[in-house]
Amino acid sequence: MRAEIVKDRVLVEKKAINEFYNNGYYGRPKPNGLELTLIEAVYLAYREKIEVEHEGKVLDFAGLFKAASILHPSFELKYIVYKDLRERGFYVQPGVTDFRVYPRGSHPGKGAAKQFVYVRSERAPMPLRDLLRSLAAAENVRKQMILAIVDEESDITFYDVKRPRLKGEMKEPLYPDINVDATFLEDRVVVWDEDASNTLFENGFYGKPLDSQRLQLSLVESRYLLEKGVLNINNRQNESLEVDAFSKMASEIEPEFNMKSSVYTDLRDKGVVPKTGFKFGSHFRVYSQVESPTKIPHSEYLIHSIPLDHEFALPVMSRAIRLANSVRKRMIYAIPTDDGIDYIDIGRVKM
Amino acid sequence: MRAEIVKDRVLVEKKAINEFYNNGYYGRPKPNGLELTLIEAVYLAYREKIEVEHEGKVLDFAGLFKAASILHPSFELKYIVYKDLRERGFYVQPGVTDFRVYPRGSHPGKGAAKQFVYVRSERAPMPLRDLLRSLAAAENVRKQMILAIVDEESDITFYDVKRPRLKGEMKEPLYPDINVDATFLEDRVVVWDEDASNTLFENGFYGKPLDSQRLQLSLVESRYLLEKGVLNINNRQNESLEVDAFSKMASEIEPEFNMKSSVYTDLRDKGVVPKTGFKFGSHFRVYSQVESPTKIPHSEYLIHSIPLDHEFALPVMSRAIRLANSVRKRMIYAIPTDDGIDYIDIGRVKM
Repeated sequence: MRAEIVKDRVLVEKKAINEFYNNGYYGRPKPNGLELTLIEAVYLAYREKIEVEHEGKVLDFAGLFKAASILHPSFELKYIVYKDLRERGFYVQPGVTDFRVYPRGSHPGKGAAKQFVYVRSERAPMPLRDLLRSLAAAENVRKQMILAIVDEESDITFYDVKRPRLKGEMKEPLYPDINVDATFLEDRVVVWDEDASNTLFENGFYGKPLDSQRLQLSLVESRYLLEKGVLNINNRQNESLEVDAFSKMASEIEPEFNMKSSVYTDLRDKGVVPKTGFKFGSHFRVYSQVESPTKIPHSEYLIHSIPLDHEFALPVMSRAIRLANSVRKRMIYAIPTDDGIDYIDIGRVKM
Repeated sequence: MRAEIVKDRVLVEKKAINEFYNNGYYGRPKPNGLELTLIEAVYLAYREKIEVEHEGKVLDFAGLFKAASILHPSFELKYIVYKDLRERGFYVQPGVTDFRVYPRGSHPGKGAAKQFVYVRSERAPMPLRDLLRSLAAAENVRKQMILAIVDEESDITFYDVKRPRLKGEMKEPLYPDINVDATFLEDRVVVWDEDASNTLFENGFYGKPLDSQRLQLSLVESRYLLEKGVLNINNRQNESLEVDAFSKMASEIEPEFNMKSSVYTDLRDKGVVPKTGFKFGSHFRVYSQVESPTKIPHSEYLIHSIPLDHEFALPVMSRAIRLANSVRKRMIYAIPTDDGIDYIDIGRVKM
């Protein structure tokens, strides 16, 4: 069937409405024919359903592909994703986002699209603010947000983005009536009292025993317990440290201390137990409940704190999520904002 | 037994030589007693074997620990690793590196130390040059290089560092007599000729089919094949691109292109097949041999290129290695130098 490039669209003669729209939901019917996006047109040309003219000449496939690549930013990326979804039987329509995808068994006119698909190249950094804006847009109309990331060899990885429900069972009081001295050494804090060490470790899964009598605490744990009045922290010269002085010293050791610490506090306040996620390259692994350090359950989440102006390097994000999923955890990003901590959960999905 | 802090060492009375050196290889025998490092002394004090005086006063354990923390940089980190190794039955001696460790069943005087252990905090960035210098020092005396990384909660992860042997079976010619046109689109290259597309994909596992007739190539693959004279690459305006022009355009799309490309070339020249490692957050996954794209074997290595002035953020390194190991691969770093590409293999070990 004959078609023609008009600006950044392709117009196909009128009978295409029946052949392509009614039988496949390609394009949008118009009074003078069927209007296709360049992506739809190249796909139909690949399937040898249409021949496309441009500036009076019929283009071969390579010619059409090159023309589309010039006319449409990120054409190849989007074509790769479109073709993949179409070939796996989904009806796909262009939308405010890159694509709206209909659930299997449904199609335009029958039901609503279920997913908004955003296509990105692995090479382009992805600003967190863009991601949050897209997520809000999808949530507003109750769609699932899908990221389709195309790697340099044109493989596609799909991720869904959503808000997690983090809720734990570790309610106060976890450390009744403790008020104990601790020392801020070079970059960690030690509690010297045996009873307090054991209670903090056993009841709240705070810290790690230095030995059977003494407890080492991380900087975020120490600040939390200092703020709760559980610890009195002294430096090595036996000078007492208030929360502000402690936080300042901790920030010198760990530049991300304040961000991490605000997330740690929020998580503890939600009743979950955050422990270091160093082995997984994340700030925290999180337990919903730890009845005893001798019966540590599976931790379901890895949590990494990022600032609102963060830009995701997608290979780094890919690695983080892949690792989390490989140990049966969800990868959660925690974002301190003026209204508290925002959490987003990004995971691989099969489409 | 009585002991005394002298500068940054601890001197124990003479009978300690028999009790601690002959029965445990603590310290170095001296004419006037047994000289311990602060780390050894704190460990023996923890085991209630010695009482340590400082400036005329006997110190309790907390006092000794604080004094050692002031006198010895990174004392807590090193103590944590020393205690861990000792408690698992290893004889450990101070050395040019942090510790020399004897293999099980051996001890000072009987055999040689097998491992050099370097202790680091997860928080301190690790310059690649330091790592390479340490590796060379260990190799010089045929020791295994071990990194002991202590996280903020004082858990230790051990890594061994070595040089991998990368050797593959994919010898030239993989693409006899091909000379074919290809187009540099927005950020990838497409070969339009069906036969050439199939040969490159089937014989050399280059690229990924766009469809049954056309092949998409990544930027590093394209440059390699351009240099070999296999491809003629044109831009979308049908202007021919030489290697330099192509590399310049590719570097604008991907800032690390030149580094990645030199590693890609070296790997192909070694007869292995590098494909993108995006899903693992690394530059490449590598196959020793790919007989056919329908029978893709397990890839044994992930390879990430880093410049000589790289500084490892240890949580990032931890995540990369953990992920590689979780999919039964080794994590290899590739470092372009003036004398070619250096490779180092870093993996988790159990001590």
